[in-house]
Amino acid sequence: MEYPALILKRGEDARLRAGHLWVFSNEVDVAKSPLSAFTPGEICVICDSQQHPIGIGYINPNSLICARLIVRGIEHAVDRSLLVHRLRVALGLRERLYSEPYYRLFYGESDGLPGLVLDRYGDVIVGQTTTAGTERLKDDIAAAVLKVIKPAAMVWKNDSGARTMESLPDYSEIAFGEITHPVIAREGGLDFQIDPIDGQKTGWFYDQRANRDQLAPFVAGKRVLDMFSYLGGWGLRAAAMGASEVVCVDASASAVEAITRNAAANGLSDRVTARKADAFEELKRLREQRERFDVIILDPPAFVKRKKDFAEGRLAYRRINEMAMQLLAKDGILVTCSCSYHMSRTTLLEAVQQGARHLDRQVQVLMQLQQAPDHPVHPAIVETDYLKGFICRVLPA
Amino acid sequence: MEYPALILKRGEDARLRAGHLWVFSNEVDVAKSPLSAFTPGEICVICDSQQHPIGIGYINPNSLICARLIVRGIEHAVDRSLLVHRLRVALGLRERLYSEPYYRLFYGESDGLPGLVLDRYGDVIVGQTTTAGTERLKDDIAAAVLKVIKPAAMVWKNDSGARTMESLPDYSEIAFGEITHPVIAREGGLDFQIDPIDGQKTGWFYDQRANRDQLAPFVAGKRVLDMFSYLGGWGLRAAAMGASEVVCVDASASAVEAITRNAAANGLSDRVTARKADAFEELKRLREQRERFDVIILDPPAFVKRKKDFAEGRLAYRRINEMAMQLLAKDGILVTCSCSYHMSRTTLLEAVQQGARHLDRQVQVLMQLQQAPDHPVHPAIVETDYLKGFICRVLPA
Repeated sequence: MEYPALILKRGEDARLRAGHLWVFSNEVDVAKSPLSAFTPGEICVICDSQQHPIGIGYINPNSLICARLIVRGIEHAVDRSLLVHRLRVALGLRERLYSEPYYRLFYGESDGLPGLVLDRYGDVIVGQTTTAGTERLKDDIAAAVLKVIKPAAMVWKNDSGARTMESLPDYSEIAFGEITHPVIAREGGLDFQIDPIDGQKTGWFYDQRANRDQLAPFVAGKRVLDMFSYLGGWGLRAAAMGASEVVCVDASASAVEAITRNAAANGLSDRVTARKADAFEELKRLREQRERFDVIILDPPAFVKRKKDFAEGRLAYRRINEMAMQLLAKDGILVTCSCSYHMSRTTLLEAVQQGARHLDRQVQVLMQLQQAPDHPVHPAIVETDYLKGFICRVLPA
Repeated sequence: MEYPALILKRGEDARLRAGHLWVFSNEVDVAKSPLSAFTPGEICVICDSQQHPIGIGYINPNSLICARLIVRGIEHAVDRSLLVHRLRVALGLRERLYSEPYYRLFYGESDGLPGLVLDRYGDVIVGQTTTAGTERLKDDIAAAVLKVIKPAAMVWKNDSGARTMESLPDYSEIAFGEITHPVIAREGGLDFQIDPIDGQKTGWFYDQRANRDQLAPFVAGKRVLDMFSYLGGWGLRAAAMGASEVVCVDASASAVEAITRNAAANGLSDRVTARKADAFEELKRLREQRERFDVIILDPPAFVKRKKDFAEGRLAYRRINEMAMQLLAKDGILVTCSCSYHMSRTTLLEAVQQGARHLDRQVQVLMQLQQAPDHPVHPAIVETDYLKGFICRVLPA
């Protein structure tokens, strides 16, 4: 094996042996293997303090997480054939789960290649590399995608916030092929036109699909408010499930235009309206106008992006959930979510419960929400479990 | 208001005001309101240390949880009309969730009457009172059920373990009406004949229904092992979803007979076999015979019934999950559950992950399981959130 060795301090192999994939820079024996000897993204053999190899990974000497394990043992090189194998295993799961090619195809650590995300929109793949390691592998990754999936085109949407921590620049580019038609995310029988270059993340949030499926018993014949609606995923699906009226609110003018366009394309214009507004201001305005909704969906962006934002972010969750409950009709349904890793399920539920008590309401938690199964959780890496939410029935106390 | 007052010590009202419903005996100001002055199940006004009423509840001077709040404020008496109202609110939820009358109709604290469970099997209601308070109310409860639901019959299946802590005897009886036909739980288009008198709990476990619904993408054409199968809920549903072969294992001879009968009644006999065996012994035997299954379901009874059983129970979860993984075919699915309140989601997942690492396997958590929405969680009472599980894909490391 020709890869250089990254040698850990004594005992620092325990977490890796228990299943985790990350090495922090303070765990490296820098006397034996100075980090400065490595280049960002270089492949290395990760060894314990006795210099026994644990497996092969990649390194970024400039990052707090300085190495990530890709494969245990040293029998398999990290090459195109390994990437093809990992992709096939990932595809195998999605083909069991879904009858049509619209899903998260590859989810980083959980699918065995830290730092890589691939979303599939029919014959277009949109990828994100978030580490120097996958950035360096990106041509091999694209070649593996071409071989396994044979899509018409692949786009790199390399502008994730995580790249900053790896000192990587932001950019978007076509990896291969040509996009000759509008790119579509199909969900629940609806077509959503997405923008793989200028949209959020890869263009769509497949992580909420299974949660949106759960709306059915609650929205038929009801008035629905969809806050932070982006392209209208929740709102349009509610309309397709029989909601009598849906109001979508998003702060972005282009999102509001997209909702209107997507509503028309799916024959739902008569029941869906979209407004450009700040969420907090719009909730206040609706309350002042004594508007009432039977179902309110809160799917905000992460209010707690970093640990240090926790106190402020938690207050924002508390405040927005209480504001939403004030607009709920009697026996209403609140769908509330957080995609902040630092906001735990327990803390989100506490925010809901505190708001409810403050308003003298009683909450029943009907369903606990989670990321869809094409975003599997790695049981040793809690950071892979980031999306949580609740479908709540809100009653008078 | 003619109810006697139960007066709390200073500060002990905080948890109730935050939404909880329980009073522990050490929180009572026994100088002002001696517990010995109350009879088990008596209705009382629960007051803070300033003697301001918080609400109305019932008391059991002989129980660690000595009182439970039923209604906030003192405007509403605890009478038949309150019970009718609570039942109607509970029914309203279930009628939104389900098109047929087979569900948990009432779930204790979460539905606003601590100590009462009602399960609905078409025109038969099976109830359980678990506290002296609901035991004393049981005729009023039965009258409310008759008024709201109008079932053909209602059974009290009063043998829950929780009754011991309330010094209540175990018994079963017909509350009203007559059972003139086999009692059925209908789930996923299948009819399961249940026994409301000699079965477990009320006869069926509706709490797993939504989880069983999730089997569909994983079982078609596959060989499935259903451990602790009771009446065959998981196994028969897997067969109905297209499993090629299902083996059900239960330690009870009558359960095994019931599975065989239920398989025949649903036209699934050709694909389902049921065996009477101890789970651990059967898993060992199957391993020795080098049997392989594509999907294995572990839905055991609570291994951790009391907190003091935690260490031993956790080991049992660890062991049984590892034994099951040894029987899984390559790229197999493990469905693993715990209904032990004391076994947290995190601890169960650790048990799975430790077993997987020990066998050099890699786990992807595809879905996190939970009790069905007719068992709503009370956000202030963590004890109401008891059922957890995971659908895991198990791969070579």
